[in-house]
Amino acid sequence: MSVPEPPTQAVRPSVLDPAIAARLRRDEAGLVAAIVREHGTGDVLMMAWMDDEALHRTLTTGRATYWSRSRQEYWVKGQTSGHHQYVKGVSLDCDGDAVLVTVEQVGAACHTGNHTCFFDELPVRTGVPT
Amino acid sequence: MSVPEPPTQAVRPSVLDPAIAARLRRDEAGLVAAIVREHGTGDVLMMAWMDDEALHRTLTTGRATYWSRSRQEYWVKGQTSGHHQYVKGVSLDCDGDAVLVTVEQVGAACHTGNHTCFFDELPVRTGVPT
Repeated sequence: MSVPEPPTQAVRPSVLDPAIAARLRRDEAGLVAAIVREHGTGDVLMMAWMDDEALHRTLTTGRATYWSRSRQEYWVKGQTSGHHQYVKGVSLDCDGDAVLVTVEQVGAACHTGNHTCFFDELPVRTGVPT
Repeated sequence: MSVPEPPTQAVRPSVLDPAIAARLRRDEAGLVAAIVREHGTGDVLMMAWMDDEALHRTLTTGRATYWSRSRQEYWVKGQTSGHHQYVKGVSLDCDGDAVLVTVEQVGAACHTGNHTCFFDELPVRTGVPT
């Protein structure tokens, strides 16, 4: 299956620090994954997507901001739900295709009303260290 | 930019439980994101990718197994490095495009030798709840 080459620059205008932008390895849509973790509990709450500008806004406003792939627009978490995410820290991973966002979560992170989006536990045969 | 439609079925042969396969929302390459968290500490260690069969192997062998996008092959974490991941639990998120894998991590999760891949902290203006 052929997919477009991933872009090496932002696909939408952004004032993200060029030194950070240069470290991003974006997918074909110009996005990196954003893994959201709750400050204090360490619970993994959700995964969303950021382009350069969403990352810039997240870093500079202290409010978690994503790119909505379905609506093709920026999305400040909590803007409609009131379930704000106040950013405590952001780390980039070793290959630049994901960020870990640590937040203070107001209310439920998941649109279903669950604390976390990862509430659907799958049956697993757990590994036993040998 | 036009990208292929995401597949509604596995892109490679898999014996994953059809009830689970039906809940996956794969990307254009037939993959879901796998967020890996350390059992006990709750540290987020890395992000990788799974197709249906990698998820099946992870669930049934108890050894975290991914799909390598660069090598286009299955990859059992630790197979070459010795840094095994013994699976303690797997949860699917609300929209089916990501799984959270809780593991016992042997050694460093990151190929750089770091405990976690998310070691590159970005400067952030932290949010203040109002």
